[in-house]
Amino acid sequence: MKLISFDYRGTASYGAVKGDRIIDLGAHFGSAIPDLKALIAADRIFEAAGIADAESAPSVPLAAVTLLPVIPNPGKIVCVGLNYADHVQETGRTVTESPTLFLRVAESQVAHGDDIVLPPESGRLDYEGEIAIVIGKGGRRISEDDAWSHIAGYACYNDGSLRDWQTATPQWTAGKNFWRTGGFGPWMVTADEIAAGQVMTLITRLNGVEMQRTTTDRLIHSIPRQIAFISTFTPLSPGDVIVTGTPGGVGAKRQPPVWMKPGDVVEVDVDAIGVLRNGIRTE
Amino acid sequence: MKLISFDYRGTASYGAVKGDRIIDLGAHFGSAIPDLKALIAADRIFEAAGIADAESAPSVPLAAVTLLPVIPNPGKIVCVGLNYADHVQETGRTVTESPTLFLRVAESQVAHGDDIVLPPESGRLDYEGEIAIVIGKGGRRISEDDAWSHIAGYACYNDGSLRDWQTATPQWTAGKNFWRTGGFGPWMVTADEIAAGQVMTLITRLNGVEMQRTTTDRLIHSIPRQIAFISTFTPLSPGDVIVTGTPGGVGAKRQPPVWMKPGDVVEVDVDAIGVLRNGIRTE
Repeated sequence: MKLISFDYRGTASYGAVKGDRIIDLGAHFGSAIPDLKALIAADRIFEAAGIADAESAPSVPLAAVTLLPVIPNPGKIVCVGLNYADHVQETGRTVTESPTLFLRVAESQVAHGDDIVLPPESGRLDYEGEIAIVIGKGGRRISEDDAWSHIAGYACYNDGSLRDWQTATPQWTAGKNFWRTGGFGPWMVTADEIAAGQVMTLITRLNGVEMQRTTTDRLIHSIPRQIAFISTFTPLSPGDVIVTGTPGGVGAKRQPPVWMKPGDVVEVDVDAIGVLRNGIRTE
Repeated sequence: MKLISFDYRGTASYGAVKGDRIIDLGAHFGSAIPDLKALIAADRIFEAAGIADAESAPSVPLAAVTLLPVIPNPGKIVCVGLNYADHVQETGRTVTESPTLFLRVAESQVAHGDDIVLPPESGRLDYEGEIAIVIGKGGRRISEDDAWSHIAGYACYNDGSLRDWQTATPQWTAGKNFWRTGGFGPWMVTADEIAAGQVMTLITRLNGVEMQRTTTDRLIHSIPRQIAFISTFTPLSPGDVIVTGTPGGVGAKRQPPVWMKPGDVVEVDVDAIGVLRNGIRTE
């Protein structure tokens, strides 16, 4: 099942994509389950699948809605840096035993189909194609063996970065958190459709040209390892997002560097999920 | 006025401290304004002051409540590192033109009077006494001249850090986000009681011994500069927290290093605010 968050006629809702329509789960559940995060927290994804299959389910045309980031209001967004060898190499850094983590805030996210925003304060807007995990069942000190059972689903993520702001100080926070630079979509594919450990292929394209390509078996810190490590220091909660890392080929490390500019179109394509597409515009 | 968040008989609320009682503003406003963040967002702090002064206001004994972190659910917690010269020097780093920022998650916070938790995964728990700003009026690209008018109030903060986890990778995230390591309290002193630019004295004591002392005129990046810089890349919202930096004297850089251990008591004392006190316990 493909779950999305959307706005329809001024009201935020969430639902399941069925062809060219969206089953409006928000309309079905009402205020008791106000958003996709709450549906996940209530552990009612399976029930939602049954509703989505019923003929009588309320639905709206996919073309009539404005998509929102898959989870518009995650409690936390934990991003893993330096997690594919070719990217570690191009940055001139070294692999560490622990995963390198940084956080994004919710305001930095942008939906599929919406534009990533180039702010006037920088000309160095770069893409980072990644796979995002959405946490289902929460927990602390989750073992690697149990980790797969804590995943609600998967989405594409573009960890958009302003490189000059990212590297102006020892911590990357500012450059990783500009308003509307992190693409998150187009939907969340529920975990029942992607087997534990299934190898996914991740491709990033800029204006149709392939810029990054990898497979998830090349992750330095695997998905279970990430969940185990992060949950060692903080409780993971339903709807929390883990962004699992980008491979080599980022714009900043090309000769000459490639920066995204207004009018560009960037895509993050994951075979098991779909294609996240964003234009670029100035603010 | 001193505003706090608390739990009374199993119900979360917020209020104003009046001697040994708390005016229960949560009981007064009800579900329309469910928490202190919502009171700030509704711009009703001034009205709350009038309620707190009325004889008929509902109140509970301060001794009967369990305090919560001043804002238990901030949208974001932005921390400024390397912001006093003596601390930059002891870390062996250099001053950068831009402030060095990292983020904490809400689950890392702990209230005044509650214990900071030493996890079994580390023995290197360190204090960092700081002053926290709570944002009142939100905004983007706030000018330094306007910055003071965006502050709802001030609190003490202990940016508790697990040093081995902080420095295991290039990003500090894990060591700065262990569950219940960030003291935030005892209350928020509203901005009308602290003049713009008023020099505050900040002292950290461990088991009664002074470990850190500074004054806010020594901040490398001033409070208005922090607000202006952060709001350049992300919108600031009511209830957002900025933790403004720690001075020299952290435990990790002493010879020999000083680590906080179970049974210790750590205090962050700011003359204009009050004293944040936390014990240390194992998890």
